[in-house]
Amino acid sequence: MVEQKASNVTWHEGEVTRADRAKLLGHTGATVWFTGLSGSGKSTVAVALEKALHGMGKLAYRLDGDNIRLGINKNLGFSAEDRTENIRRIGEIAKLFVDAGVISLTSFISPYRADRNLVRQLHESAGMPFIEVYVECPLAEAEKRDPKGLYKKARAGQIKNFTGIDDPYEAPERPELVLHTDRMSLEQEVQALLDLLRQRDILPA
Amino acid sequence: MVEQKASNVTWHEGEVTRADRAKLLGHTGATVWFTGLSGSGKSTVAVALEKALHGMGKLAYRLDGDNIRLGINKNLGFSAEDRTENIRRIGEIAKLFVDAGVISLTSFISPYRADRNLVRQLHESAGMPFIEVYVECPLAEAEKRDPKGLYKKARAGQIKNFTGIDDPYEAPERPELVLHTDRMSLEQEVQALLDLLRQRDILPA
Repeated sequence: MVEQKASNVTWHEGEVTRADRAKLLGHTGATVWFTGLSGSGKSTVAVALEKALHGMGKLAYRLDGDNIRLGINKNLGFSAEDRTENIRRIGEIAKLFVDAGVISLTSFISPYRADRNLVRQLHESAGMPFIEVYVECPLAEAEKRDPKGLYKKARAGQIKNFTGIDDPYEAPERPELVLHTDRMSLEQEVQALLDLLRQRDILPA
Repeated sequence: MVEQKASNVTWHEGEVTRADRAKLLGHTGATVWFTGLSGSGKSTVAVALEKALHGMGKLAYRLDGDNIRLGINKNLGFSAEDRTENIRRIGEIAKLFVDAGVISLTSFISPYRADRNLVRQLHESAGMPFIEVYVECPLAEAEKRDPKGLYKKARAGQIKNFTGIDDPYEAPERPELVLHTDRMSLEQEVQALLDLLRQRDILPA
């Protein structure tokens, strides 16, 4: 049967479009961009959202430090120039995933407003949804959590230019969503995200 | 109904795996890497394969000059170093798509064996299928086609370091498939690719 389909396919009609992929997948592609301090809970909520979407039969994919910093961006350091290039590349990759129909979830501190706005611009000028989610958590709370022990090292001067300690975090001015991870449950956070994705017609109502 | 599912999802069980995505999509992720001279027919067959896969309900996505050179790799030129970095980044992006469960189709001349082998290595060391497809076409035929008028410019000296003219094309030594575009129909090429994807268990038999 599959053999048959392949032989009969009329590929001369043109290329596969974003609308074609959305029909196949049952949702449209979009980037959900999580930004916030180290330890604010970006990855935790991204993992939970990915899991929830998968449970609903939707295709989401997380871009994070593990698969980006150790892969395509392994030739970038932490200078101001490299940080900007890091975010630019992540933005371009997220955009490719959106084009492919995937809901891309990015979790990076991405502390500078100008860098995030560039990524928003990249998406919006191509007619692709960009959802900026401010994962808000007071510095004191994030520092108390310190899941990777980085704040401790930054306070001890073993890490320089650490966001929130000796490098600024520029909070989003008009994020699509704010998650207060110090007073919302993970389930509430995921629910707020799913509600927003439905409102924006990324997921069916 | 969808609301219900989301609330009941048990995301604490762990992260979504490659196997989970393969189950959702009905195929596994893989990179099909088309290499060959300019004008050999790489993009033509990639477009046709994407269309055929889409017609079978499979998710494929093409990476090509249009979405890579004008996007993530717009800060790269054509020096030897930049060409290598160009292919490395494409390989890393293709790998991310494979991880997401997508069949990624790349169509770039990618003339140097070392660069292609690096990308193969990246995939194979992560247990991801890498299918190198040599899109073979005699230079005289590719030059006769000259769809973008580039050979004409290269012969006139207006483009330097043009593959096949004044820069080498290093043919694959052990490609998974060779397509002779000067004597195969597009339908035969797509059929050979689909057969191979089934043999490799990327598509169900």
